[in-house]
Amino acid sequence: MKRTSRDIRTANRYEVLSRIIAGSPASRQELAAATGLSLATVATLVGELLELGVITEVGFEDSAGGRPRGLVAVDPSGGALIGVDIAETYVHAELFDLALNVLAHADEDVRPGASRPEEVAGRVAAAVGSVVAQAGGEAARVLGVGVSVPGQVDRDTGVAAYAANWNWHDVPLLDLLAEHLAYPLYLDNPLRACTVAELWFGAARGRGDAVVVNLGTGVGAGLALGGGLHRGVTNSAGEWGHTTLVLDGRLCHCGDHGCVETYVGAPGIMQTLRELSPESPLLHPGDQTATIDALAHGAAAGDPIALKVLGDTARYLGAAISGLVNLLNPEVVVLSSWVAARLGEPLLEEVRRAVARHALRRPLAATEIVLSPIPTDPVSLGAATFALEGALRPVGRRGTPSPLPSRLHRSWSSSGAGRYGDRTDRHRGPS
Amino acid sequence: MKRTSRDIRTANRYEVLSRIIAGSPASRQELAAATGLSLATVATLVGELLELGVITEVGFEDSAGGRPRGLVAVDPSGGALIGVDIAETYVHAELFDLALNVLAHADEDVRPGASRPEEVAGRVAAAVGSVVAQAGGEAARVLGVGVSVPGQVDRDTGVAAYAANWNWHDVPLLDLLAEHLAYPLYLDNPLRACTVAELWFGAARGRGDAVVVNLGTGVGAGLALGGGLHRGVTNSAGEWGHTTLVLDGRLCHCGDHGCVETYVGAPGIMQTLRELSPESPLLHPGDQTATIDALAHGAAAGDPIALKVLGDTARYLGAAISGLVNLLNPEVVVLSSWVAARLGEPLLEEVRRAVARHALRRPLAATEIVLSPIPTDPVSLGAATFALEGALRPVGRRGTPSPLPSRLHRSWSSSGAGRYGDRTDRHRGPS
Repeated sequence: MKRTSRDIRTANRYEVLSRIIAGSPASRQELAAATGLSLATVATLVGELLELGVITEVGFEDSAGGRPRGLVAVDPSGGALIGVDIAETYVHAELFDLALNVLAHADEDVRPGASRPEEVAGRVAAAVGSVVAQAGGEAARVLGVGVSVPGQVDRDTGVAAYAANWNWHDVPLLDLLAEHLAYPLYLDNPLRACTVAELWFGAARGRGDAVVVNLGTGVGAGLALGGGLHRGVTNSAGEWGHTTLVLDGRLCHCGDHGCVETYVGAPGIMQTLRELSPESPLLHPGDQTATIDALAHGAAAGDPIALKVLGDTARYLGAAISGLVNLLNPEVVVLSSWVAARLGEPLLEEVRRAVARHALRRPLAATEIVLSPIPTDPVSLGAATFALEGALRPVGRRGTPSPLPSRLHRSWSSSGAGRYGDRTDRHRGPS
Repeated sequence: MKRTSRDIRTANRYEVLSRIIAGSPASRQELAAATGLSLATVATLVGELLELGVITEVGFEDSAGGRPRGLVAVDPSGGALIGVDIAETYVHAELFDLALNVLAHADEDVRPGASRPEEVAGRVAAAVGSVVAQAGGEAARVLGVGVSVPGQVDRDTGVAAYAANWNWHDVPLLDLLAEHLAYPLYLDNPLRACTVAELWFGAARGRGDAVVVNLGTGVGAGLALGGGLHRGVTNSAGEWGHTTLVLDGRLCHCGDHGCVETYVGAPGIMQTLRELSPESPLLHPGDQTATIDALAHGAAAGDPIALKVLGDTARYLGAAISGLVNLLNPEVVVLSSWVAARLGEPLLEEVRRAVARHALRRPLAATEIVLSPIPTDPVSLGAATFALEGALRPVGRRGTPSPLPSRLHRSWSSSGAGRYGDRTDRHRGPS
């Protein structure tokens, strides 16, 4: 809860690096202007990133009348990051260079009945092994693996505290993964991964407070406040899907009634369709993806039932999002995840109209509502970002940072875990 | 949106001073342990506060076997602060010493039909003049006046953007007050004043993320996140009263339906009573205070109607507060303002039970729900705290801080406003 000088320094380091990633090459002067930090602070942070080997000097630009300005750019060869998106039916892994370009990706199925923790850990290990092999097998270059698992996550201990779909309780997932993978590992959930992806690379970058509304099977609201992810005191902030929208309304799997999720999650949207038109050919019982796709196509074709379902969904969403706008006064609300992506612009337009009807004038005027602009899988990207943040975090905790590969080598070859041990993250070496 | 090293330093300075105020005398070692800051950082901050004259050295304590530790305490004579609570029907002013003890207070009525901005500004000036006179007329010792006005406030420009009760729109209240008052002035609203009071002196002090639920005529939720007040991008965060709780429910004065405020604000509670028992002797039409008091007494006496209204109110509140717990994962939820104070423990008990029924297990386990422990008017206290924060903020922006009185003198006798001008606060000198 206490922000220390080190926290702010770490946050500023992230900020400078994300600016360089977003707009390489960049001068220290441009970075100072973009971040609001002093030139001296930026120069120090750039120096640390140069020593770490994640960025590199790439020449000079003329400044009108002044001294030529040194330019820095991210060094894609400075290391690799892996992001893993564990979902209900698949494991998706991507390997990125330090500019967050995708160099390789792999998918593994999670079959019904094969979702025991050991089985899922094996699927993750296979997917990670595949992307490392595709990228040339340079395992030594991998700075870390970020893993996103649905549900409630204790990132400090690397435990999947509760995953409703698989009925997992307190699964020590990072311990299981460490039996297969000799990289630093970071665990969190898709909601926070998407939010960090928006903060670093998407619609929240360089903006004030932002809310990332995740619309999938489950529903949540990732909060990017004060330039960083708001986690809450036990890393469970964002469970917006269980806000009461209709007192005594639809029964939710959480045991409560009238939760937002029961109206705007994919199963909730299917229920709206079923109540409206039980025999609709748009309805694919048991298949959320096919039903949402059918609604998107139907709405595009002017099908009145599809349009009505879209309108009702937007009405629920608009009322619920208005609550976020009134409570948090954000600069941007981002609609993310697969339901938002598939229903797209027509949903966005209706939601904007509904929010305008519900929200208070002053916060409404300050808020923009957009679809996520991230073209790839935001969960893998966000998970890889957790690994990048983890790799950057130790900097400044000792006198002089050493370049990452040797630092990692020293750490993981000596005592295993612990050297990077930290109150707020879990790092694992080979066990 | 960007947190700079200066922001963190200012936040740490507040934190250290508030700890000293809470527990004088204190050693630097105790302050470091309480704040989580390094001893070196605490020593620097204590040195700045000593130079400012807001704290003083008060001797030594023995430390077992080590060197005696120097003790510091707040210096009550280091200056005075004034907090002003402008409400619908009155203006309440309190003058505090730097230990935030009340030295004087004054009340002025705001009569129906006498609520033009110039009239209200005159009432504020009269109340402030009264407390200064009571305190010995030492106007030079007043470091600043914090003013709380209901509604939406633009603190940067000192404008009351919208006050529903008086139909004020974009009233330049600080400009009007500066015609009467030659002190630095700080404008904000009651929700944020109460929240800052809890953060500095109440249930949120030293805690992780906190939510201050204000239950009065209006309803709001002040957010103390990451150790500081969350304001949102246009200083309007906290408008939780207009979260939809019952889709298509009771009509709200904001134009929407089913807002939390229409169920748990004082008029909403009166409506619940009226719907349940239109002829109830508990109901005092047109008098919110008398009705809430009658409900409190009735519930204490076991009156079934009063108990039913309390239970229904707690049920609405519990569902709505659960949304805050799920979304923000706070360490503490504080029930504040006059409705919470009057309905007290019986309401608290019922709310706790209702939240336990609605909230998710993980965030619920991390959250405590309490009544505000602040025994005096939290709005005046919080407003005075804004003035104290303002007086501390300039420190560190120049080489060496000079003691406050001379610094103020130099500032306000030379160029009037501007020297303390700041992106996030409005300070006014004599015009």
